[in-house]
Amino acid sequence: MQINPNFSRLKESYLFSQVRERTAAYQKAHPEARLITLSIGDVTLPLGASVVAAMHGAADEMAKRETFKGYGPDRYCYGYESLLNALQARYARLGVSLKKEEIFVSDGAKSDCGNLSDLFSAENIALIPDPVYPAYYDANVMAGRKVVFARASAENGFLPMPQEGVRADLVYLCSPNNPTGAAYSKAQLQEWVDYANRTGALILYDAAYEAFVRDKELARSVYQTEGAKECAIEICSFSKTAGFTGVRCGYTVVPEALVRGGARLNRLWKRRQNTKFNGVSYITQTGAAAAFSEEGERDIAERLTYYRENADMISDCLRRLGIPFTGGKNSPYLWVRCPEGESSWDFFERMLSKANVVVMPGSGFGESGEGYFRITAFGRHGDTREACERMEKLLKKG
Amino acid sequence: MQINPNFSRLKESYLFSQVRERTAAYQKAHPEARLITLSIGDVTLPLGASVVAAMHGAADEMAKRETFKGYGPDRYCYGYESLLNALQARYARLGVSLKKEEIFVSDGAKSDCGNLSDLFSAENIALIPDPVYPAYYDANVMAGRKVVFARASAENGFLPMPQEGVRADLVYLCSPNNPTGAAYSKAQLQEWVDYANRTGALILYDAAYEAFVRDKELARSVYQTEGAKECAIEICSFSKTAGFTGVRCGYTVVPEALVRGGARLNRLWKRRQNTKFNGVSYITQTGAAAAFSEEGERDIAERLTYYRENADMISDCLRRLGIPFTGGKNSPYLWVRCPEGESSWDFFERMLSKANVVVMPGSGFGESGEGYFRITAFGRHGDTREACERMEKLLKKG
Repeated sequence: MQINPNFSRLKESYLFSQVRERTAAYQKAHPEARLITLSIGDVTLPLGASVVAAMHGAADEMAKRETFKGYGPDRYCYGYESLLNALQARYARLGVSLKKEEIFVSDGAKSDCGNLSDLFSAENIALIPDPVYPAYYDANVMAGRKVVFARASAENGFLPMPQEGVRADLVYLCSPNNPTGAAYSKAQLQEWVDYANRTGALILYDAAYEAFVRDKELARSVYQTEGAKECAIEICSFSKTAGFTGVRCGYTVVPEALVRGGARLNRLWKRRQNTKFNGVSYITQTGAAAAFSEEGERDIAERLTYYRENADMISDCLRRLGIPFTGGKNSPYLWVRCPEGESSWDFFERMLSKANVVVMPGSGFGESGEGYFRITAFGRHGDTREACERMEKLLKKG
Repeated sequence: MQINPNFSRLKESYLFSQVRERTAAYQKAHPEARLITLSIGDVTLPLGASVVAAMHGAADEMAKRETFKGYGPDRYCYGYESLLNALQARYARLGVSLKKEEIFVSDGAKSDCGNLSDLFSAENIALIPDPVYPAYYDANVMAGRKVVFARASAENGFLPMPQEGVRADLVYLCSPNNPTGAAYSKAQLQEWVDYANRTGALILYDAAYEAFVRDKELARSVYQTEGAKECAIEICSFSKTAGFTGVRCGYTVVPEALVRGGARLNRLWKRRQNTKFNGVSYITQTGAAAAFSEEGERDIAERLTYYRENADMISDCLRRLGIPFTGGKNSPYLWVRCPEGESSWDFFERMLSKANVVVMPGSGFGESGEGYFRITAFGRHGDTREACERMEKLLKKG
């Protein structure tokens, strides 16, 4: 019996686990320290009242014989119509028309990002931004694929563009980007779509942070460009808008027009999900649909405002310190240059031990992340304010 | 960009979808027909009161800032301790001692059965019972693995045993079996475990129906045999006990003692889940834990009794008709010989059109299933009784 040999090519531990382990070890050695965690992108505001009310209602339906729901509807690959209607309407507001059959409800963007890998041959080359959310890289390494990188740096505004002469079959884009917070404009995204349609590449577009976009010229969906339905899959999530990091619900769009190697990818994904997945809780889906109600939308807007206030607070602090950064305006993440040429992990350790603030070491997101750190706007106001004060105290010059 | 070429080796549509499509087409053509569906193994009794109460409580926690939960606990790969404690206690009652780190909570047995495939090389040969739940076969074909079959027939009591000289790296066992309802005794299972430890094979043991076992000598967990922790992964589910088909929660045991090719499979699975999965709703896990409370256990016992009454009703009907069958006693499924040498799909069509009863064509579960059909005990009493009456009317001789 042989183990998948590609596992040995992975780093021992997943970045986020590593940060949590180091943090826990520090806390254990210094039980008196009041740590503030602005590393992992977990939300801190609770679920909205309309979402919770809808979940209560759904749980009550599940308790009665007449309204109990078993396996999800087969027709839409386990997605309930109420949620699919809401998602169709959301896309329509962005000027994108989708059929219900093109929207697949799942237990989250992370699962879909990884599981989509099943559809592609190991022979493909994956083009992955560097730095980037490590799950894309790890999933492709697990599948035995060669990975090449699209380097993001201050020089290209952390927004790598297509390069002629670099073969890329699977192109991973994340906009607004995790970790850099940089977001593609519609015009820039159009270049990627044109590139994919010209070369036959497939774009895997992670839109998990689209709701944070404030600038009108930036894209909120890859389908806001021309020709994207012929070359792109879009993955999105309720985690960062409705606060579903612990509830688990996402959705993936696989357009019917997307054909590669003679195969309709919509069919392949349905076949994959029918074989290795069985849908998302009726209670969760009902809650997710309620996030699109009038009250639900108002709740989401309030949450976005709250997190944006954090982003503004951190931005102001960094400006006062004279430390260069990107993100924060159209993203919940700020991507910050470590002061005085420090390495990412050294700075992580210094912030942890001297300021008791946990940030994310940039090098964990890829080679080009070395010398940077990521800080999130998902904390509570009080914690964020105090973290800024501690950071200022630690890093103020002279 | 190349598609995974193995998809073309799969049948166009997943068995269960196919049955639903044919049924829907019949209903459309005969809107007046009152169809009774005893095909898919979906439960019909609602969630228990204690489970629903726990879910309400958890939803309320998610609504308050102080008690809101984001991403699940990293330590146990997203499983909450309350649920893991309950699962440890469940195994202890079976005489099996497990560490929390060995139990992985997931969104269901089907997901785990499929996703575990990521851990193994494409070079392995999978041994899969025939007939069997089609997801094992499809997942291995998708991964490009060669599949060999362990044939189940009336001759071996539908319980294939290890065969020397047949190379098998991954051995899929499902007991009580879906679809045949046959269940291994502890002594028989010991033979499989000894075989795997002798040859270095890995057993993937699907225990989704273990709660239906009534006979004391039959196994309820593979770990009730000696040496299983060195060779077996066990997959289990809340679907058929607590009625979670639409709630989605399962668990997979990967013992720390399980080592293959120098790698600890527990570590590999944790790495896989950390990369491509993000846990199960806190609300769902809280509900699942409540299924093990005193009231929850009582609810489950009542549900089992209800479904067993269906199984007994169908068994009596088949005996009166003189039609040979297996299962039903220790399983929610009955595996029945089609009368008069009819093929599975012919009998499916005859039952659909003449009795308006939907059964599962046995050939959909594999070659050896030809000439059989599966009928489930998960229906409502009234429907099951009427289905038996219609079946008797249609099939009574003379």
